[in-house]
Amino acid sequence: MLRIAYEEALERMTEGLLPYLEEADARHFAGIFAGNSLDGVHSHGMNRYARYLSDMESGLCDAKVTRAERVSGFGALEVWDARGGVGPLIAEQMAERVIALAKAHGIGCCALRNNSHWLRAGRYGLMIADAGLVGICFTNTCLNLAAWGVKAPSLGNNPVCMALPRKGGSLLMDMAVSQYAYGKLEIMAQEGRMLPQPIGYDTQGRETCDPGEICKSGLMMPMALWKGNALSVMLDLTAAALSGGRTSCEIGPPSAGESRMSQVYIAVNPAAVNDFDAVLEKTEAAIRFLHDLPSEGGAGGVHAPGENLEKTRRQNREEGIPVTEITWQKILEAAERGRRTRKEAEA
Amino acid sequence: MLRIAYEEALERMTEGLLPYLEEADARHFAGIFAGNSLDGVHSHGMNRYARYLSDMESGLCDAKVTRAERVSGFGALEVWDARGGVGPLIAEQMAERVIALAKAHGIGCCALRNNSHWLRAGRYGLMIADAGLVGICFTNTCLNLAAWGVKAPSLGNNPVCMALPRKGGSLLMDMAVSQYAYGKLEIMAQEGRMLPQPIGYDTQGRETCDPGEICKSGLMMPMALWKGNALSVMLDLTAAALSGGRTSCEIGPPSAGESRMSQVYIAVNPAAVNDFDAVLEKTEAAIRFLHDLPSEGGAGGVHAPGENLEKTRRQNREEGIPVTEITWQKILEAAERGRRTRKEAEA
Repeated sequence: MLRIAYEEALERMTEGLLPYLEEADARHFAGIFAGNSLDGVHSHGMNRYARYLSDMESGLCDAKVTRAERVSGFGALEVWDARGGVGPLIAEQMAERVIALAKAHGIGCCALRNNSHWLRAGRYGLMIADAGLVGICFTNTCLNLAAWGVKAPSLGNNPVCMALPRKGGSLLMDMAVSQYAYGKLEIMAQEGRMLPQPIGYDTQGRETCDPGEICKSGLMMPMALWKGNALSVMLDLTAAALSGGRTSCEIGPPSAGESRMSQVYIAVNPAAVNDFDAVLEKTEAAIRFLHDLPSEGGAGGVHAPGENLEKTRRQNREEGIPVTEITWQKILEAAERGRRTRKEAEA
Repeated sequence: MLRIAYEEALERMTEGLLPYLEEADARHFAGIFAGNSLDGVHSHGMNRYARYLSDMESGLCDAKVTRAERVSGFGALEVWDARGGVGPLIAEQMAERVIALAKAHGIGCCALRNNSHWLRAGRYGLMIADAGLVGICFTNTCLNLAAWGVKAPSLGNNPVCMALPRKGGSLLMDMAVSQYAYGKLEIMAQEGRMLPQPIGYDTQGRETCDPGEICKSGLMMPMALWKGNALSVMLDLTAAALSGGRTSCEIGPPSAGESRMSQVYIAVNPAAVNDFDAVLEKTEAAIRFLHDLPSEGGAGGVHAPGENLEKTRRQNREEGIPVTEITWQKILEAAERGRRTRKEAEA
């Protein structure tokens, strides 16, 4: 594992994006990859960079489109179309827009159709919470889960996040509807570890605790059985109903390409209707309660979701972002390609 | 198991409520108990009737308060105070209010503080969806779960529902953050069944698959381990932050009484921004996709959440609502008390 300085990661990833994007957009997008890794979300940060470049190269993501277009609106609710453009740039545009709507109306919602992969749900929830609002964001995705009782790709592992403002770092729950991410299963397989329970099927359709077998079959089950199943369906159909965009079954299996997804961004402004200092103090008191619980190992209670984010961010700022050699190698190669393309264009 | 006609259940439960409520409110509240049981949600319908009467008798629920009071509002977001009043009556008031807000603004939110038990989350989601809107409702509750890694009452088993309009019966996900409800564990214990996985602790703090032991200790774990834990905390703190009401740790352990909870009602109006017929057709197509999946037993795919509700409701209308003898006996005794109280008042 390497440790790469944030600025170095930002520069190299910007170079690799320049064949596809204007300089300001390239730098912004590179900052999103680097920022997600800085927060410790490697699976949806720099680890995903090479794949995103290849999606832009193949046209699965249309790099020429970096802003969504407003389709319709009524009061505090708006529908936007991302037209297959650059997912995280457009997602940030939506987070900014929904903050403005909630500041004007107390609550706001942007429903977005046809967006490419937004990388990490929590990024947009955090933007909303860091602005002092409650954020709820979710997206659908392709059919990368096995529904409860079905040994076939049949549900999206749809992520949902909730974020809450807090002094010194917002709280954040950011989760998909499976117990583990495929990225995590891959790491467990590399380390030769087995799962405590069967959470998926092997290629023969047998339940298995072997993470490598589940990665091969692509047949992970939803978390909490029928409950994760229900949550997946409702997130999917709600995102499609509000945005007028595609459902998971229209997006299809992973082989069809994870593209043109439906997303929902909701922001609510507690400060418009409550004493905000009292709200923050109430949240702090609840967090202290969790900290003071008698935990099993005697190790000091329970953390609130996302509470350790600031610490991770600071540590990775100081010590460098942990990156596997193969991920960093791909980033350097893309940077080299980017510099070459630029020279050719200048020549 | 008895089968009681809906009208008979409604009449008897109305009689039992008359010592506490005006006639119109008593009939309305009786209809909520009967309606939830009609929908097959027995644990939050007639099974809970006797307990609610005793909460009104003890003053844990203030039966004199049947409407919430508006505390503050800004655009499409409003805060209301239930003042410890009759939970389901006030929850219906909030569902109606949030429908009006969403019709005026595209999206609306009512945050409610100090409400008594609302019985069944899904009831309010369904009201919103049956009006053609997307509904998201959640509440916190007392500390009736063991946090992940903690063998003590430390989290609320907070329910959340999502509901989506559909021709011929809305879709509904209605779930708390544990894998099973305590009511379900009690039934399994009576039937001598064991759980497939340890989902709680016995009174000695040992993990157990015995549902009876978990009912004794009150130490059920969250569903999906850390994920259910995070969802519980975020629902709790968000409901408290938006309503200015109590968090689960302020509500305290079940022994302190499950009262004065914080709740959130959100409605979004897809018809304001999309072709609503196209939205409905998209939902139907996704449901057909689920039905056509190859299920393990060959038994015809997967159902969408809440899809069987209409069928259950129709069946219980025709055949009578299934009620245990002990539950019905308690309802008859309360009706008798109600009639006696009334006669005494008239004398």
